[in-house]
This record gives sequence, C-alpha cells and structure tokens, in this order.
Amino acid sequence: MEPAIDLAAKLATFEGHWQPRTVCEYNGHDVMVVKVQGEYRWHSHAETDDFFLVLKGLLYIDLPEGRTVKLEAGQMFVVPRGVQHRPHAPQEAHLLLIEPSGTPNSGDPATAAPRRVI
Amino acid sequence: MEPAIDLAAKLATFEGHWQPRTVCEYNGHDVMVVKVQGEYRWHSHAETDDFFLVLKGLLYIDLPEGRTVKLEAGQMFVVPRGVQHRPHAPQEAHLLLIEPSGTPNSGDPATAAPRRVI
Repeated sequence: MEPAIDLAAKLATFEGHWQPRTVCEYNGHDVMVVKVQGEYRWHSHAETDDFFLVLKGLLYIDLPEGRTVKLEAGQMFVVPRGVQHRPHAPQEAHLLLIEPSGTPNSGDPATAAPRRVI
Repeated sequence: MEPAIDLAAKLATFEGHWQPRTVCEYNGHDVMVVKVQGEYRWHSHAETDDFFLVLKGLLYIDLPEGRTVKLEAGQMFVVPRGVQHRPHAPQEAHLLLIEPSGTPNSGDPATAAPRRVI
C-alpha cells in the first residue's frame, strides 16, 4: 500500500508563516500547504487565479470595494486573476494553495517567498 | 462578508455516486466535489493529471503493477497523466477533484458522467 500525501503531516514538518511548501505537482501547478497568521499585503496575480482551501482555522480575504470573504475549515475560494486581494488570519490557519509552478506568492518576483518542496 | 464555497454544504445538496459537481473554476479547470462508493472502472486521462483530495471517508486508488494508494480524510494524491487507475471506496467517501474543464471523468467522452455545476 503506497502512502498518500497527508496534508496535516506535511504541515507538521515546518514552522513559519506565509512560506508555502509544495507537496506535489498537478498539470504544471504547485500544490502547496502554508501556515498563515496576521495580515499579508495587498497583491494580485496578472497571470493566474489564486486558489485557497482552508484546512484548519479561519482566513479572511479582503477584496476590492470593501468586500471580504470569510473561510473556515473545509471552505474554499478562488480569487480571479488580476483581482487585488489581501489575506489575513487572526490566529494561525493552515491552507492548501494551488498556483502555476513558479508563481511568486506576493505577485512580485522580487519579494516573493522562495518556493520549497517537502 | 461574502460567503466562501463550503464543500460539505455543496455535497449535502445532491445524492448519487461518481457524478462530480463543479463548485468553481480555476485556471481553466473545474473544481468539483463528488460522492463515491464501490468500484469505478480502470481508466486513464491522456491529457491531464488527476487530482484527488479526500474530504470524508476512505478511498483506494489502484495503480499499475499491483500498487494501491490509500487515502483518508485530509490526504491527497495526483495520478499522473496517462497512468491507468481504478478508484474504489468500501463506504461512501467525499472527494475534491480538479480536472481541466470538459475532461470526461471516465477518460472516455462516450461514457463520462455529465458535468454539473452547483
């Protein structure tokens, strides 16, 4: 019997916030887990939608025009490409993210966290 | 506050097995939820990897050469494109699937379940 990818076990292998780890690849995308807490910067991705699935905790995603999406565990949201957004989490939250391989997480290659594989 | 996509709530809106429902789109892919039970047929997808995340229950994916992957809730697996596989679930299981929009779930347009959006 071969092991599947256990997302909680992957998340248990590292600390630090807003530093996604790639757990596998899918159709040219990185499937990633990340721990987040506090507020990320406003940003957008010109070339890709942004996929968020909350595995644990609570995440807010601020959107233009004062809109905010609230995501609890088992809830997901896709930010369309080009749309400004600001994720924030009052407590530590654990997420599954999907982005095309090589996409900078901040939308800016100069300030993006390095992509790490676990 | 805008609602996120609640995967369990989406799954509660329908019955039937092996009939995925699209909950949103992501980069030209359908993000889908599906209830499965029993054994699906051996098949492969020539043009796409196959993404499985178990939300509830237990899923096995048989692979070539007698290999089998066991997935419990919170575990995922990507079957590479072109690789034969046979999913099966002893009890009802709930999955998140991702496939390029228009991909037949059986690998065969003639026998694929119709794609439905919820």
